[in-house]
Amino acid sequence: MTETNPPSPAQDRPPARPAVVLLSGGLDSATTLAIARHEGFACHALSFDYGQRHRVELEAARRVGAHQGVAAHHWVKIDLRAFGQSALTADIPVPKDRAQAEMGRDIPVTYVPARNTIFLAYALALAEVQGASDIYLGVNAVDYSGYPDCRPQYIEAFGRMANLATRAGVEGRALKIHTPLISLSKTAIIERGLELGVDYGLTHSCYDPIPDAGRPLGARPCTRCDACLLRQQAFAALGQRDPLLQ
Amino acid sequence: MTETNPPSPAQDRPPARPAVVLLSGGLDSATTLAIARHEGFACHALSFDYGQRHRVELEAARRVGAHQGVAAHHWVKIDLRAFGQSALTADIPVPKDRAQAEMGRDIPVTYVPARNTIFLAYALALAEVQGASDIYLGVNAVDYSGYPDCRPQYIEAFGRMANLATRAGVEGRALKIHTPLISLSKTAIIERGLELGVDYGLTHSCYDPIPDAGRPLGARPCTRCDACLLRQQAFAALGQRDPLLQ
Repeated sequence: MTETNPPSPAQDRPPARPAVVLLSGGLDSATTLAIARHEGFACHALSFDYGQRHRVELEAARRVGAHQGVAAHHWVKIDLRAFGQSALTADIPVPKDRAQAEMGRDIPVTYVPARNTIFLAYALALAEVQGASDIYLGVNAVDYSGYPDCRPQYIEAFGRMANLATRAGVEGRALKIHTPLISLSKTAIIERGLELGVDYGLTHSCYDPIPDAGRPLGARPCTRCDACLLRQQAFAALGQRDPLLQ
Repeated sequence: MTETNPPSPAQDRPPARPAVVLLSGGLDSATTLAIARHEGFACHALSFDYGQRHRVELEAARRVGAHQGVAAHHWVKIDLRAFGQSALTADIPVPKDRAQAEMGRDIPVTYVPARNTIFLAYALALAEVQGASDIYLGVNAVDYSGYPDCRPQYIEAFGRMANLATRAGVEGRALKIHTPLISLSKTAIIERGLELGVDYGLTHSCYDPIPDAGRPLGARPCTRCDACLLRQQAFAALGQRDPLLQ
């Protein structure tokens, strides 16, 4: 089933509990936000400006958050460029036209050291301040097994640590890291997002976007990096066309 | 035994392996740095500008690092003020003249949510980039049991998570979080630091320093906050006078 309208607000629920949702403006985090909302949370989106080469990602995060009606959107500027070593933050060429079998084999050059640990650490701080016991993260271990910090055993270990790190743990409130996409294929992720009314035309996935002043985000996808290829294949498998390519 | 001179460099060792040492400029981190050096590491100091009310802390970190001859001193600016809720980053009065029994009872107002998790996450990123398998952190669970993220079980859980988070873990290099002070009293910490040549006159501990243009750091300790009281008691127990009070 595919619903293209956002779900209407529930009238018969108690006031929503807060959750922190990490929102990059990509396809996965946009879907994760929709799932967190669907599960009844008042969502505090948390986005990072970490010296991305592509500011388009930040604009996409802003639009996705606004479209989905987040309770608040928190922005944190962090400097991973000081640590170098990644195609997403430094000037290393992005691989193009790779077959899917090549993508998950090694840790990709687009890997940012300890990125999810840094992002989740800030999410933990925000959760504590907002009195939230739930953090949502759109990691996926299926299409991108090359990232060590996207694996279920990493997320479980972070959750155990988080429950020892903060007041919540000391006071007996269990803190939960939700990763609703972790075992879904890209196709299943998009299918779920379309059901929940995600507008994928607002999202951004490309590792190497081409400037295009005629587009709302000021750029169009390269269509050839790993992220573009996975996205195209997933929309094709659903018999849909990616709204970014229309 | 008390040595007040820094130890001379070892002549008969292999080239030192790198370690990341979190350095706040306080008494504990200055001692931890000296221990890491004594254990043979080339130390990459990592210091944070996280919207401290007291810039004196950053200057102390710089002086301690320079005095102890770190291999490199890395600085990261992070914005915890966005998360509010702590006397160290917001405008909440610092408690004064408390008896030691009062100090460890509750989570103190000087607690910064998830601070050590955020700091260790950056240390993990730096360790990965530098090829370091060792991270030193000067947490202490004896005098300040009120901070949840200073407890041994938290550090152990962070270490388990860290070994799943990064290339090091995937490639079978074990990453270790060293907390050499965790079970030492403040007195034992200072005793060890004096043996290793730490100059405590360069360090800064006070939560509420008083501006004083005549001092090298531009301020003097209040002598009444928890940090000042613990420090005074520890120097007194050793029959020493705190060089900051001379």
